[in-house]
Amino acid sequence: MRLPLLGALVCCALMAWQHCAAEAAKARHFKWEISNMFWSPDCEEKVVIGINGQFPGPTIRARAGDTIHVQLKNALHTEGVVIHWHGIRQIGTPWADGTAAISQCAINPEETFTYRFVVDKPGTYFYHGHYGMQRAAGLYGSLIVDVAEGEEEPFKYDGELNLLLSDWYHESIHTQMVALSSKPFRWIGEPQSLLINGRGQFNCSLAAAHTPGANQCAAAAVNTQCAPVVFPVQPNKTYRLRVASTTSLASLNLAVGNHKLTVVEADGNYVDPFVVDDVDLYSGDSYSVLLTTDQDTSSNYWVSVGVRGRQPKTAPALAVLNYRPNRASKLPAVAPPVTPAWDDYDHSKAFTYRIRARAGTAPPPATADRRIELLNTQNKMDGHTKWSINNVSMVLPATPYLGSLKMGLKSTLAAARPAETFSRGYDVKLPPPNPNTTVGDNVYVLAHNTTVDVVLQNANALSRNVSEVHPWHLHGHDFWVLGYGDGAYRGDAADEARLNLRDPPLRNTAVIFPYGWTMLRFVADNPGVWAFHCHIEPHLHMGMGVIFAEAVDLVGKVPNEAVSCGATATALMAGGHV
Amino acid sequence: MRLPLLGALVCCALMAWQHCAAEAAKARHFKWEISNMFWSPDCEEKVVIGINGQFPGPTIRARAGDTIHVQLKNALHTEGVVIHWHGIRQIGTPWADGTAAISQCAINPEETFTYRFVVDKPGTYFYHGHYGMQRAAGLYGSLIVDVAEGEEEPFKYDGELNLLLSDWYHESIHTQMVALSSKPFRWIGEPQSLLINGRGQFNCSLAAAHTPGANQCAAAAVNTQCAPVVFPVQPNKTYRLRVASTTSLASLNLAVGNHKLTVVEADGNYVDPFVVDDVDLYSGDSYSVLLTTDQDTSSNYWVSVGVRGRQPKTAPALAVLNYRPNRASKLPAVAPPVTPAWDDYDHSKAFTYRIRARAGTAPPPATADRRIELLNTQNKMDGHTKWSINNVSMVLPATPYLGSLKMGLKSTLAAARPAETFSRGYDVKLPPPNPNTTVGDNVYVLAHNTTVDVVLQNANALSRNVSEVHPWHLHGHDFWVLGYGDGAYRGDAADEARLNLRDPPLRNTAVIFPYGWTMLRFVADNPGVWAFHCHIEPHLHMGMGVIFAEAVDLVGKVPNEAVSCGATATALMAGGHV
Repeated sequence: MRLPLLGALVCCALMAWQHCAAEAAKARHFKWEISNMFWSPDCEEKVVIGINGQFPGPTIRARAGDTIHVQLKNALHTEGVVIHWHGIRQIGTPWADGTAAISQCAINPEETFTYRFVVDKPGTYFYHGHYGMQRAAGLYGSLIVDVAEGEEEPFKYDGELNLLLSDWYHESIHTQMVALSSKPFRWIGEPQSLLINGRGQFNCSLAAAHTPGANQCAAAAVNTQCAPVVFPVQPNKTYRLRVASTTSLASLNLAVGNHKLTVVEADGNYVDPFVVDDVDLYSGDSYSVLLTTDQDTSSNYWVSVGVRGRQPKTAPALAVLNYRPNRASKLPAVAPPVTPAWDDYDHSKAFTYRIRARAGTAPPPATADRRIELLNTQNKMDGHTKWSINNVSMVLPATPYLGSLKMGLKSTLAAARPAETFSRGYDVKLPPPNPNTTVGDNVYVLAHNTTVDVVLQNANALSRNVSEVHPWHLHGHDFWVLGYGDGAYRGDAADEARLNLRDPPLRNTAVIFPYGWTMLRFVADNPGVWAFHCHIEPHLHMGMGVIFAEAVDLVGKVPNEAVSCGATATALMAGGHV
Repeated sequence: MRLPLLGALVCCALMAWQHCAAEAAKARHFKWEISNMFWSPDCEEKVVIGINGQFPGPTIRARAGDTIHVQLKNALHTEGVVIHWHGIRQIGTPWADGTAAISQCAINPEETFTYRFVVDKPGTYFYHGHYGMQRAAGLYGSLIVDVAEGEEEPFKYDGELNLLLSDWYHESIHTQMVALSSKPFRWIGEPQSLLINGRGQFNCSLAAAHTPGANQCAAAAVNTQCAPVVFPVQPNKTYRLRVASTTSLASLNLAVGNHKLTVVEADGNYVDPFVVDDVDLYSGDSYSVLLTTDQDTSSNYWVSVGVRGRQPKTAPALAVLNYRPNRASKLPAVAPPVTPAWDDYDHSKAFTYRIRARAGTAPPPATADRRIELLNTQNKMDGHTKWSINNVSMVLPATPYLGSLKMGLKSTLAAARPAETFSRGYDVKLPPPNPNTTVGDNVYVLAHNTTVDVVLQNANALSRNVSEVHPWHLHGHDFWVLGYGDGAYRGDAADEARLNLRDPPLRNTAVIFPYGWTMLRFVADNPGVWAFHCHIEPHLHMGMGVIFAEAVDLVGKVPNEAVSCGATATALMAGGHV
């Protein structure tokens, strides 16, 4: 410690360069205050949850190996808050995963909690609230991790554009949560607007799209909170577009007028590059795509984001790719790209199936130790509408699992263990024959270093001929997406033939298509308690998730401030240790 | 314990009857769940905070000496909650006072907290949320304490009517809190409706009043959530109207067409009966008034509640005094009583000054040990608008005072002690010459059994020629209202002459009139930490209050569940005791 420079030199002399670079990793400190504030994300003023007076929250930019310190003060008036660092695996720091009632106690108003974690892997990430539906209130921002000092990305580009995509409702999340929890159920409907970097134009973007030159969007033109985003680019350069979706509900499709896109990264993992006209993004997804500004340089071009997978009632979001030195306000000559038909699942699957790991990506273990099959159904309980997994709808407890399981406070967990599979006779093409469900903890206990296969099985919802898209997101890990299939998974030779064990992509979010199945594999090598859930905010609110409690005995000392609530607080006050 | 009946008999033989009756006091158990729900208090559907699916919350009815046990589960999604039992002194149970950040940690979502306290005194009380502005979201209900078994009220009546009065905003409290905290300040305006027992008729009650027979309020007629309340009465009987105001903002006036009202109780204390045409109620006040049904029995009569003290923009609330056997729907022949002019302060003062203690009420100590003079001003701080007391605007800490003071965690308190007086040169008729203020704890430390005089001094607000009404409410005690005066209090012979030491009323809430002062006396005989604040919800949110920390060393063992947050939780986890 007395001679850090010499230490670094010795390190550089003794180790490979990349390790030495990692040694130079930085601590990056952020001081954030979370509060409600007035904002006009789509030119209509509402209340959002902002960070340091900004919406979206500040972008965190770091290098692989850096340690992030976010000292978070909750300045909301009566609500707790947490922040989840989506895609960061939190190796060794499960208490920093930012999931209320799972990894930590919600941070109470006026309290401060410091998140400390290593961003070990370069990639395009984001962060967001993970308590109630606070993400849908605007509590999100970008988290971008560059390669470690001295390392290089496996592709070349001249500049970067960042696009954090979201959707936006005019009703408050409080009203939304009441509606979704009501008896009878009230569906919240489609979002009013789509946002690019927190900006949209309610009842305006279509007008702008279809009547170039007209100025029907006077509010948007003068309001910096909702003016269309302009991305200035130089002609004949290659740009890396970092695109992530933190939508509450909407599945999205991104396209840029006249430009091809080369997909190179998904969820912080490199993929085998492939060229497309448009990119599907489900909530929780992130991609890097390369775009070369090789079109007519006298024009600007629309960046368009539209809705997939649900009958769209929300106008596309538009941004401007501004070929310099054209004026930013010069309307593109060509109309915005048309979003593929919302129910063109062939198009969606074609895109998704093309995603394969880049050469050099760690391959999955050849076999799994355990298979967990999760049937996704929509159900009823005491007049409420729920989503269930193997007929149990997840409810979160007063005491977060990480603390209560570590301390062995078993009374906080329902005794029953959730089912590992579902009846082979279940007809996924029909509504549930008996829609009644129960609520429960849905905790799956995983032994250390187990290789786990998960089959996510989609099915018909409560109404006939309805099966929805569900993007499932795993905390604490990446998984290999082994394959997808239509109809019921049977595990037979035909299903096996649909699996890719050669170059499956590593991801943290994977979609299940309507009536289909998706199979994932991961290694339980990160002790902690991890949420695994549908990333659609109302679906999670309605219980669509499970918990993986993974080698909790191997978790290190949990900071007291992460467990100072509920039964763990009581136990610690009585002299216990966590 | 083996012979309880014999024990009671012995008790009755040995003691005065009323003591024996008190011996028979009951434990009354309630199990409540707090949640947001859709409701239409004034026929427009909004989200309210309800209890067990009801709005207002269930009425608690008990006898003096009973112990109330309310097992409260917080089923809000992301918000903490507490409930304050307004007017109950919580002798020996300061942790049950239900003030977030003062007497206890807010109860987190999914957690349960049990309030246990004795209702030692008969009277008309109510309960309400005391965290953020949750009272204004509808979290309130009635708490009525009858005399102990075998005792009698000092007045006769044949029946009872209960009127819990409130006001109602269409904007959510979240939006209201953001507005009040915004820079620049945004005033939330006047309430949209007044409610009687949680029911009002937005944009309708005036129509109903002025066009008897017309049915312009179709929604109200069929919606049980907002239909006008009907009070059925028999002719030629005397009724006790229990009236309490839990408004967020509005000062109210209650009148009943053609009927005189005899005031007999104020804030749970008997008063020397006096007859009036109408009763003023400031937020936090409660009264019992006797009404005799001695009018034309062929008619029904309007109960009317209108706004005082602020230019009214809210229609009066109406209910029907239904002389049986007339139909409830028979519209009264006489128009509703007209509310006195909002700024007729002579009328207000005449009413207030008539309130004197009933003979037999404990008189105040002849002299005080300490005088605390509190100047109420409106101020600016960093562009925010605040209310300040002696130029300090109250902000509440992350760790509730009761725990942090009891444990001696002095770091949680600002070192500075708040001022006990203000400059005699301050001109209360003008806006503050230097409007800048600071925020602070505003904790006044009171020695055990000290007799304390408080002078509440009103002043001009930030705008010229504006001075508002402020009803101040004290927790943990009743106080004697010694007197009122106009202009600046000087403590001279003229001011002394305005004090009533003979039969001042005992109350828990007292008003200061515009540009005036009010003097109170109380004995600090109840160890605890007690809020003393303006009961107008937005004013409290803006800092209009102080804290009395009273003989905290004499407070008994605080239940851990009241202190399991913030610095007290940390200290207890480290092995401390509270």
